[in-house]
Amino acid sequence: MNKLSQAFDFRHACKVFDETKKIAPNDLDAILDAGRKSPSSFGMEPWHFVVISDADIKQKLSSACYNQPQIMSCSHLVIVLYRKAVQFTMQSEYLRQTVRRNLPTEGVSFELDAACQYFINYCTNGLPEGVSIDNWAEMQCYIPSANMMTAAAYYGIDSCAIGGFEHNKVMAILEAIKPQFSINNFDVALCLPFGYRKNPQSPQIRWKKEEVVTFL
Amino acid sequence: MNKLSQAFDFRHACKVFDETKKIAPNDLDAILDAGRKSPSSFGMEPWHFVVISDADIKQKLSSACYNQPQIMSCSHLVIVLYRKAVQFTMQSEYLRQTVRRNLPTEGVSFELDAACQYFINYCTNGLPEGVSIDNWAEMQCYIPSANMMTAAAYYGIDSCAIGGFEHNKVMAILEAIKPQFSINNFDVALCLPFGYRKNPQSPQIRWKKEEVVTFL
Repeated sequence: MNKLSQAFDFRHACKVFDETKKIAPNDLDAILDAGRKSPSSFGMEPWHFVVISDADIKQKLSSACYNQPQIMSCSHLVIVLYRKAVQFTMQSEYLRQTVRRNLPTEGVSFELDAACQYFINYCTNGLPEGVSIDNWAEMQCYIPSANMMTAAAYYGIDSCAIGGFEHNKVMAILEAIKPQFSINNFDVALCLPFGYRKNPQSPQIRWKKEEVVTFL
Repeated sequence: MNKLSQAFDFRHACKVFDETKKIAPNDLDAILDAGRKSPSSFGMEPWHFVVISDADIKQKLSSACYNQPQIMSCSHLVIVLYRKAVQFTMQSEYLRQTVRRNLPTEGVSFELDAACQYFINYCTNGLPEGVSIDNWAEMQCYIPSANMMTAAAYYGIDSCAIGGFEHNKVMAILEAIKPQFSINNFDVALCLPFGYRKNPQSPQIRWKKEEVVTFL
């Protein structure tokens, strides 16, 4: 079995981390790079990763995450934020800069406006029924989240994808530290604690290949 | 640079595949296993992977995917389906079987009913505002999709995440072959063609680390 296959077996939802073990900076960089290099719809990268190691901030976040033990015991907590609908307008500097990178030439404001408008039209009329811009942006964030957990496992580092938290409380804590993280602009897709397991991992329960795969 | 880091640089949105090159069965298995072993909220694995290599079916799907050249030129097309809201009810055999696996003992119908109801309550009242059960299930599918693309890249295999297709048409094609893939039960999260690139990859454009990561 190769090292990547081993990583998919190693990865599990780690419930308690060993508080004495901290992730080395080069490993943390590799995990974040796995997220940063992830693909996204239209190359929009509608995400931001907030990496928290400060104990006081973790303490505040812990209560916003129903006191799940991963928050305090992990080495580093990565909060994956998605960019909300307000950032996908012609006035959005994020949208303009992101779209500009993908244009063949720079500084052509007509082309840039047209390209931004094309994407805004997609968000307004092109998304499937029942999928909002916020839903679309949040979904994209699951791609880097998966890649960060996989990369962590590859380096022998545990993780846990946490979807249970109080969105308003988490965002209020972040906004109090950095005003740009207002809930108008961002919301939380997932909380991803990383660190080293304290206990043996639980058995991996999955549907079998023949139950989840159909060949045509 | 290690092999996983190389994979994140190798992966790009491949627009045209070399039609003469086919993915070996053991590589395809490893890709699908990366999807199958992915984490999901509550361990619900709300996905199904339809793997298409038949040229006639690909031809039909191509027009439902706006004739994007990846569909016909790829070696194998994986359609990642998400399970829709109707599958998250007390009558759903999928829900009952999935929840049963996670119970400590089997066959205790009271516990099983209570555990299913707990999850249904979460879907009904616990999801954040603006997130439907369908949205929740579709989001989960982005995790195995990311892992399958990463695994493919690790084995030197190209991919492309396609979100632009006509949902009703794709599902009608699948349902005509396998009636269980009705649009009442499933919808498409992403179409993932896999194969071998025909042309050199485009430059990888990404925000820099300092632009998408904040350390607290």
